[in-house]
Amino acid sequence: MDEGEGFVKKGGEGEGASISKNKAKKDAKKAEKAERAAQRQQTRSAASSAGASESDETDPLSSNYGDIPLEDIQSKSVTGRTWTDVGELSVEMKDKRVLIRGVVQAIRPMSKKIAFLVVRQNMSTVQCVLVVSKDIISTQMVRFATSLSKESIVDVEGVISVPDPKDPIKGTTQPVEIHVRKIYCVNRNMSNLPINIEDASRSETEFKEAEKSGKQLVRVGQDTSLNYRVLDLRTLTNQAIFRILSQVVNEFRRFLLSKNFVEIFTPKVIAGSSEGGAEVFKLDYKGQPACLAQSPQLHKQMAVCAGFGRVFEVGPVFRAENSYTHRHLCEFVGLDVEMEIKEHYHEVCDIVAELFVSIFNHLNENCSKELEAINRQYPFEPLKYLLPDGNVLRLTYDEGIEMLTEAGVVIEPKGDLNTEAEKKLGKLVSDKYNTDFYILTRYPLTTRPFYTMPCYDNKDYSNSFDVFLRGEEIISGAQRIHHPDMLIQHAKERGIDVKTISTYIDSFRYRPPPHGGFGAGLERVVMLFCGLNNIRKCSLFPRDPQRLTP
Amino acid sequence: MDEGEGFVKKGGEGEGASISKNKAKKDAKKAEKAERAAQRQQTRSAASSAGASESDETDPLSSNYGDIPLEDIQSKSVTGRTWTDVGELSVEMKDKRVLIRGVVQAIRPMSKKIAFLVVRQNMSTVQCVLVVSKDIISTQMVRFATSLSKESIVDVEGVISVPDPKDPIKGTTQPVEIHVRKIYCVNRNMSNLPINIEDASRSETEFKEAEKSGKQLVRVGQDTSLNYRVLDLRTLTNQAIFRILSQVVNEFRRFLLSKNFVEIFTPKVIAGSSEGGAEVFKLDYKGQPACLAQSPQLHKQMAVCAGFGRVFEVGPVFRAENSYTHRHLCEFVGLDVEMEIKEHYHEVCDIVAELFVSIFNHLNENCSKELEAINRQYPFEPLKYLLPDGNVLRLTYDEGIEMLTEAGVVIEPKGDLNTEAEKKLGKLVSDKYNTDFYILTRYPLTTRPFYTMPCYDNKDYSNSFDVFLRGEEIISGAQRIHHPDMLIQHAKERGIDVKTISTYIDSFRYRPPPHGGFGAGLERVVMLFCGLNNIRKCSLFPRDPQRLTP
Repeated sequence: MDEGEGFVKKGGEGEGASISKNKAKKDAKKAEKAERAAQRQQTRSAASSAGASESDETDPLSSNYGDIPLEDIQSKSVTGRTWTDVGELSVEMKDKRVLIRGVVQAIRPMSKKIAFLVVRQNMSTVQCVLVVSKDIISTQMVRFATSLSKESIVDVEGVISVPDPKDPIKGTTQPVEIHVRKIYCVNRNMSNLPINIEDASRSETEFKEAEKSGKQLVRVGQDTSLNYRVLDLRTLTNQAIFRILSQVVNEFRRFLLSKNFVEIFTPKVIAGSSEGGAEVFKLDYKGQPACLAQSPQLHKQMAVCAGFGRVFEVGPVFRAENSYTHRHLCEFVGLDVEMEIKEHYHEVCDIVAELFVSIFNHLNENCSKELEAINRQYPFEPLKYLLPDGNVLRLTYDEGIEMLTEAGVVIEPKGDLNTEAEKKLGKLVSDKYNTDFYILTRYPLTTRPFYTMPCYDNKDYSNSFDVFLRGEEIISGAQRIHHPDMLIQHAKERGIDVKTISTYIDSFRYRPPPHGGFGAGLERVVMLFCGLNNIRKCSLFPRDPQRLTP
Repeated sequence: MDEGEGFVKKGGEGEGASISKNKAKKDAKKAEKAERAAQRQQTRSAASSAGASESDETDPLSSNYGDIPLEDIQSKSVTGRTWTDVGELSVEMKDKRVLIRGVVQAIRPMSKKIAFLVVRQNMSTVQCVLVVSKDIISTQMVRFATSLSKESIVDVEGVISVPDPKDPIKGTTQPVEIHVRKIYCVNRNMSNLPINIEDASRSETEFKEAEKSGKQLVRVGQDTSLNYRVLDLRTLTNQAIFRILSQVVNEFRRFLLSKNFVEIFTPKVIAGSSEGGAEVFKLDYKGQPACLAQSPQLHKQMAVCAGFGRVFEVGPVFRAENSYTHRHLCEFVGLDVEMEIKEHYHEVCDIVAELFVSIFNHLNENCSKELEAINRQYPFEPLKYLLPDGNVLRLTYDEGIEMLTEAGVVIEPKGDLNTEAEKKLGKLVSDKYNTDFYILTRYPLTTRPFYTMPCYDNKDYSNSFDVFLRGEEIISGAQRIHHPDMLIQHAKERGIDVKTISTYIDSFRYRPPPHGGFGAGLERVVMLFCGLNNIRKCSLFPRDPQRLTP
């Protein structure tokens, strides 16, 4: 670990290494003055805190460090102090005095007189330096800092120091150091954590390099990570993943609202099963049998029937299937769209293409910091999603099958593509068209849900499509049957008890316009955009057939 | 009903009333030419449609009307025609030929030769006029139009006509008429609908006026409305309400993202009960006992513990309570926020105040059309939400109690305010401060959940607040206890089995920063902003203890 490097190499002279001694004295005096002023304003006195050890009481600098008593963080007073975000610390702030609140990620005592702390806030880390110095830093203060447990919350006050550009700080996100003047512990962690954040942050490259040099690094397994998710989520990678998720949803909504879609919220507790077939979670609703919606399919169509024209929903969907794969969850976030069609379901494909290109552009343009953080631990190739002409590739199912057949893959006639075939097709498409993102249209009718509109010219095919990202399906969509009698006929042909979906079918008696839509899984979109290997990495607190906690 | 008025008063001369005869002829010729061109492009021929009645076959104009055969709306072809939104029809489009798709809301045959249709799309309506005219409109075409059932979907092609400004069209949202040239039925409704949209749209004023003049209007009861929700939702009022909902959420997110909050999605299926006390919906999760989250409280706090700093969530929450009131639902949309606190829970109140002022401003500035539509059926006073100094009013619980006591209301010492007391206080505050929106802080500890941080100076009080809109609570918030031992102690004091919330309590062992947050109910915010009388009006498909469908 080399978070201390930036400073040590400069000669261990303390802040004088990057600011002149005269300036340092002036700064120190100015700082002292500011401190006294601040202290007059503050009602709390850390000196009287229970956390300061007895021997520290003889330290004249003891008010500059210690544990903050609970009372002082119980909304006792407002001091007017300003905290700077760690992510905002920059070379432009050289010699400025700042106050930060963050988590102690690493503690490196170099001697009794010198110590380094790495303090993290959200996606940013900064190196904090303590060097014993008369009237500024005592040995007791260094001892206090190095006695903190990792992952404790601290307030650090200090002066920004900028290292020589030829000798930058390594191992932190911020290119500056804080030369500590005060340090208080806000919430002290336990000393033995089940996961070390640094262990959970390692890339395969790090493991391999360590192995080469005969070192043994701790590997945090997926189940351990998920069991201690509140620790695991603190890695920069995980902070980045969930910021990406937030931005995917943000752009999803922004785009659709700009196209006159209305955001809706449909019930998750419903009577009957929403789509039939797949297993559902059942519950008792005040004496009535009910279940959790497997998708907002029926209600989003009902919203179109109710005259909303174009609607979308972002919300949880529940699948009780026993799928133990890298890409299935029992609860995930559905991104659902339903819209009037004037003439052709390709109008829906047009929205899909424009929407997802807009999302991918948004991530590439606005989330470079997050993408880099993910890339550091889990390297991935940037997604290729546009053809040279700027369009999104569209192929028919039959064209896809032809490519597979030519490549020697045997597919059951008019059957669905299994995961393996999808991946193979993704590879073939990538080789031929140089894109990881394409729409496959006109699926065989039997591979689609009962409410899918058949093709006008061939009843064995349907007005439907799937969308693929890096060879895996992320979206299913289609034109829907908008006529109740036809809907009943198709439901019956699939063996669905139409009584259980009577309110759905009844809504069609009041005649919706022709319409179609699609559904995507948020976690899967992020997983595949970032080339991650498991969907659990993209769910804050994942639910799978075996996991109900935390 | 007077949708026909605008035209009839002009003398019943057909389109000549608003455009000169010469111009009309030219337009007609131009239109004919365009039609023939369009027909060449179109593969479909409505003349051959099954819907055109036999007698119409002898009509040389029969290709200008009829039912579109299903095949033609099964994504058969893309004609390149452009549909104009009804809401975009304006006087600037005078004499332009347009194509619209909408719902037939009203049909008024005036004679065999003249008929009016009101066509609706989303929140807009337009009057369409058919007048028999050689080579343009046949009597058969008028008969076809008047034979349509209400709430059928139609494509109408025609020429925009602008009435004399002194004699505007009444009863539609758009100030122009369409003089029909073609009309096709896309999806024909049943002739007897359980709800008439016009009946469901009436205001109390209309009922009173009708009563005065001895007329009996049909009143659609709330249960009927909800039973036939896909019809009921088609009223302009309901279209407006759910567009307001969408905009509240939109502004909620925009504001929070601009303040560096991260949007999160937490599981709705959880082990144990999320807050204890209130009843929960239970389910079997692959053999494990589980329940639906009553709020994202625990997991949003865990997200702060996981280092996300500031988070928010928009998602369903589930309450199994048997509350049969105007303001409770068993499933509603929670607007949840959780954030680090540096010093004081008033930092959370600051966010609440700024956020909701921003939402209210957004609605007033961007949704005037929607607010007017609601106001027409359910009149309400605009919300007063700012003090003269531009701030949001804050009072302490004790100050509120004092106001109530002075007004003669007896409150149990340190007890919660019941609905009646809340309303009374809202009235007193409104009278004294001229605002319908205020924050009440520092509640007695026993009235708050176990995880609420007590006040530093008096353990009988807590660092908590409620927010009121028109005398009803819309938000609850507080600083949370961030220390596991203190949390366990407070849970035990409330008789909560700490084993059932162990993963929650365990997360605090890994030490979050001091934090607080709040939760609001989306439907309640909209209900109270718009002064509506029942929360069911603000839920697309409401769930209450008796209602699980549609």
